[in-house]
Amino acid sequence: MNLAIAGVGNNITALVQGVYYYQALASTHPQADLPGIRRPVIDDIPVDGLDFVAAYDVTAGKVGADLAEAIFAAPNNYPRLEVRVPTQNVVVEQGVVEDGDRDEQIERIAKSLSEAQAEVLLYSLPAGRKWAAEMYAEAALAAGVALVNCTPDVIARDRALLARYTEANLPLVGDDLASHFGTSVVHKSLLKLLADRGLTLTSSYQFNLGGNQDFQNLNAGGTEKKQSKLNALSVGAEAQQKVHMMPFGYVPQLADQKVAHLNIEGMGWAGTPITVDLKLKVQDSSNAAGVIIDLVRFAAARRRAQQGGFVDEASSLLKSPPGTPA
Amino acid sequence: MNLAIAGVGNNITALVQGVYYYQALASTHPQADLPGIRRPVIDDIPVDGLDFVAAYDVTAGKVGADLAEAIFAAPNNYPRLEVRVPTQNVVVEQGVVEDGDRDEQIERIAKSLSEAQAEVLLYSLPAGRKWAAEMYAEAALAAGVALVNCTPDVIARDRALLARYTEANLPLVGDDLASHFGTSVVHKSLLKLLADRGLTLTSSYQFNLGGNQDFQNLNAGGTEKKQSKLNALSVGAEAQQKVHMMPFGYVPQLADQKVAHLNIEGMGWAGTPITVDLKLKVQDSSNAAGVIIDLVRFAAARRRAQQGGFVDEASSLLKSPPGTPA
Amino acid sequence: MNLAIAGVGNNITALVQGVYYYQALASTHPQADLPGIRRPVIDDIPVDGLDFVAAYDVTAGKVGADLAEAIFAAPNNYPRLEVRVPTQNVVVEQGVVEDGDRDEQIERIAKSLSEAQAEVLLYSLPAGRKWAAEMYAEAALAAGVALVNCTPDVIARDRALLARYTEANLPLVGDDLASHFGTSVVHKSLLKLLADRGLTLTSSYQFNLGGNQDFQNLNAGGTEKKQSKLNALSVGAEAQQKVHMMPFGYVPQLADQKVAHLNIEGMGWAGTPITVDLKLKVQDSSNAAGVIIDLVRFAAARRRAQQGGFVDEASSLLKSPPGTPA
Amino acid sequence: MNLAIAGVGNNITALVQGVYYYQALASTHPQADLPGIRRPVIDDIPVDGLDFVAAYDVTAGKVGADLAEAIFAAPNNYPRLEVRVPTQNVVVEQGVVEDGDRDEQIERIAKSLSEAQAEVLLYSLPAGRKWAAEMYAEAALAAGVALVNCTPDVIARDRALLARYTEANLPLVGDDLASHFGTSVVHKSLLKLLADRGLTLTSSYQFNLGGNQDFQNLNAGGTEKKQSKLNALSVGAEAQQKVHMMPFGYVPQLADQKVAHLNIEGMGWAGTPITVDLKLKVQDSSNAAGVIIDLVRFAAARRRAQQGGFVDEASSLLKSPPGTPA
Repeated sequence: MNLAIAGVGNNITALVQGVYYYQALASTHPQADLPGIRRPVIDDIPVDGLDFVAAYDVTAGKVGADLAEAIFAAPNNYPRLEVRVPTQNVVVEQGVVEDGDRDEQIERIAKSLSEAQAEVLLYSLPAGRKWAAEMYAEAALAAGVALVNCTPDVIARDRALLARYTEANLPLVGDDLASHFGTSVVHKSLLKLLADRGLTLTSSYQFNLGGNQDFQNLNAGGTEKKQSKLNALSVGAEAQQKVHMMPFGYVPQLADQKVAHLNIEGMGWAGTPITVDLKLKVQDSSNAAGVIIDLVRFAAARRRAQQGGFVDEASSLLKSPPGTPA
Repeated sequence: MNLAIAGVGNNITALVQGVYYYQALASTHPQADLPGIRRPVIDDIPVDGLDFVAAYDVTAGKVGADLAEAIFAAPNNYPRLEVRVPTQNVVVEQGVVEDGDRDEQIERIAKSLSEAQAEVLLYSLPAGRKWAAEMYAEAALAAGVALVNCTPDVIARDRALLARYTEANLPLVGDDLASHFGTSVVHKSLLKLLADRGLTLTSSYQFNLGGNQDFQNLNAGGTEKKQSKLNALSVGAEAQQKVHMMPFGYVPQLADQKVAHLNIEGMGWAGTPITVDLKLKVQDSSNAAGVIIDLVRFAAARRRAQQGGFVDEASSLLKSPPGTPA
Repeated sequence: MNLAIAGVGNNITALVQGVYYYQALASTHPQADLPGIRRPVIDDIPVDGLDFVAAYDVTAGKVGADLAEAIFAAPNNYPRLEVRVPTQNVVVEQGVVEDGDRDEQIERIAKSLSEAQAEVLLYSLPAGRKWAAEMYAEAALAAGVALVNCTPDVIARDRALLARYTEANLPLVGDDLASHFGTSVVHKSLLKLLADRGLTLTSSYQFNLGGNQDFQNLNAGGTEKKQSKLNALSVGAEAQQKVHMMPFGYVPQLADQKVAHLNIEGMGWAGTPITVDLKLKVQDSSNAAGVIIDLVRFAAARRRAQQGGFVDEASSLLKSPPGTPA
Repeated sequence: MNLAIAGVGNNITALVQGVYYYQALASTHPQADLPGIRRPVIDDIPVDGLDFVAAYDVTAGKVGADLAEAIFAAPNNYPRLEVRVPTQNVVVEQGVVEDGDRDEQIERIAKSLSEAQAEVLLYSLPAGRKWAAEMYAEAALAAGVALVNCTPDVIARDRALLARYTEANLPLVGDDLASHFGTSVVHKSLLKLLADRGLTLTSSYQFNLGGNQDFQNLNAGGTEKKQSKLNALSVGAEAQQKVHMMPFGYVPQLADQKVAHLNIEGMGWAGTPITVDLKLKVQDSSNAAGVIIDLVRFAAARRRAQQGGFVDEASSLLKSPPGTPA
């Protein structure tokens, strides 16, 4: 399947290297046994069945470079895996900018997508650039290309936009990736276990440390992210008040690794204490790529079937699918 | 409800103190909000609705003492909670011994149970004394009393015995308590999460440290316990081979506390590593008492309804209910 | 010895309860074996040899109350130990305020100190009220009372002030308590061990969580505290750049407990990795009181010997003794 | 310097790869800045100044192979580093066996050592083969070669043997390597810190998990090792009783990695609790090679200076130097 990319960050470094990692494994591993893969094949598209056909970015070291080099340009800091990524013959093109002519930019990207015969456009810029997300969404729509939105910016939850994609028989998948194996899902599962067993939550904290751009950008503020992370625990309001969240500690040395510490204090029989301490260490952008690989194949498959709109199978892989509050 | 007890160990220290702990809370807490309680009321019997009417043991410091004192006699080492346990006017009687006259002992215990008007007999001796478990089971049956077996000894899984209880309209509940919040259920839930997400288990270990009699007794051997703990993870044979179990490290300083360390190493997208380290600290016998409180009420309720045999609701609270291999 | 107190916070709750805790132990424990005590006796003054003779604060629930009650008034959240603190017959007096008449307030406090026959005044307000620290220092000097400054405010490092205390034969001890067993000293000792062994530090992080006023106040800013904590590691500038400090995470549920997480990543032979993860949990104000008990006895002993100025033995118990940068 | 090797286990896999790792770094790194190295140069011998000139083993896959291959033969499981180890032109020769002719074997090894112009023989067989250690010691002595004993077998502590080496102006260094950065030194340093600060140890445990041959061999017994590990903490007898040691948990998945968990529970001011939990993860045989590199250079330097007997500088790198109990 032909994939175009808007935003060549760590997620893409992980995605591109991973595709060649699995290609190298394909000769020796049965498809059902690929490490870290939930769905080996989606509608005839295997994990290594992605062709990267176009890419857009605005960073100096990336624009103009072949995608195979651009994925390692600063500030990307995902590790180099032991796999060779061949030259892609895909030069990263200039992406959209906020102060440029909107229509002209949309037209330029749409033309590029068409010429590249892209089936899906993956939107993967840093969060919070709604104007960019909307321009790429318009360009994809104009070019007859499906869109997958990795960010929390409101795209698939935009009813009008979703209606236009549906009408055009183009899939629109988003918003915001759920982590493949993230802190929220682990924390949620332990709190649920506690509750199922009739134990009483006394207090809990969660903090997350990382060294990539996401952690750098979100260090300062974080109130929204805090609430979004509390929501992800799926516990009641009373329990939420007992949980302290520290979503973003920036530790540059960690680069693209994420370290999370969870603590849960509870009470069992006769009020006696129960303590759980957990440390989770993951490669942050692998956690994204492991979900992206399914989303883009869902989108391509639906587009081939000429079915537009949201893809229901994608719901559990997203934090904010259509229907959740914007 | 009237409860008789065979074996006044740490589980009973926890159970008796807990009943008075909840009684003290009853005036200030709504029933639905008792800390550490899954089922506030079972068939009209509240958590603090237990009357201890008879107790049997063979330890020097316990036999002849009032139950309120016996629960604190050595080698018990469950902590003294901040709650007053009044004199029970229940003197611990001599329990059955292996080299005594079997029939005579059964008869004596049956008579004692009848006179005490016990509804349920809780069998809670150290594991591995099948001869004792069987004598108490006969005595309860003779006295028209329901039986709850806390130990892994085969009692409820004994088809002939279960049939006789059923015929006599007496409940028989066992075998082997599942922990209220134990290492197995936490480990299992994390491994399941990993698998659900399509991540690949690389390796895992679990070890358990404790300082009570269970840990002292089971330190040496442990092969059976090891397999039983592997089974409790509910993963396939292939995954079992990747999990290393160290069920019983005896650390006297921990007394009745249990500390468990879990490690899970997995692979996500492109084989990048995922590491989970977890430490769980619980009061071991609280973990038992929190389950016993439900089992004895299930048994009493069924006996009052004149229904015999196994109690299905108890299944999830047991490691080896009828039907699992003996 | 007669001790007066300025600022009845958690440190004082710990100090007062502790004195009675050790008094209760005195009958059964040899002096050399008191738990948590470094110096059982300093110049004939035992740990439980403190008499609280005066106290000053500005908080509504504290002023006017007997010291035995004031130590439990909000926002103090140090736990109540299992020890009875008798009525002290010391009513907490109004402390100094910023917008009051300076000379008048100093005179009032000096008079109160004299009448109470205080030997030492312990200054223990929240950090950052230099005006208050200076007024209490003047009052103590006027009353012929030694001063111990628990805070990072510049008092003992003020050369002119120190000279006046010296001249008056009055001890002046400060500034800023080193923790009895804090994160810095543990982190420093592990980094030193690494260096001594010729291992190479790759990266390290430290973060501290707590729920008392110190953590609440210092959450926002923290740059100064960050550098002060880096300095406390006693490593070179190059190593400092590899250490990431997060001094103050406010987790209200922790109350006066402090939890610290340390991580150290290093390289050994052939660059192979070494990882240390450490969690430290302490009662924050016990960490202060365990140091205060020595400082106030040092000060009293010196005053009795009519020696003024700084007390050299106190150096290792302070973060910023005279001579360190202000 | 010319090094001969008896026993091509994981320690040697680490040592040989490390020498080429540092050789590769030499062009880009100043000598003083080599990662993981305590002493860049000892008597003009740099870290990468080792030539492997002879090797002895009895394992099928190793004997007859070039050393560059033999270091990766089973059961060795130290990881392959990213460094190329060139063919050494050193074929692993048959080592001594227990049931062979003693004198003949000693003579054969001595002749081989002489022909190889070895300066030092490194004895690195699995622990507990004193007969082999003694044969290699005789062979080295006969060939005029210094000996370094990595194992706890009594060699350098054998007074008669040491006297003969001294007389022959040959260095004899042993016994038993201290880890470069092991559990004992970390545990000891934290317990010392606790004591220095006047805190009271309540209890402590340490357990070690690993997957190499050492852990497999020593799993069963371990009483001696337990006491030796308690001794390594350098605390008094009273404190020793509060420490629980579990020296050897065999977790095959860990291969040559070692994971240690430490817990320390103490009491501070007023008996309030202090808890330290630490996890240490190291490459076990790197911990040995980082010490071997210094010992063999100490031995070579002394031999060149024609000084025999024990090398005092080596004391701190050994668990049982001459003078400690055999």
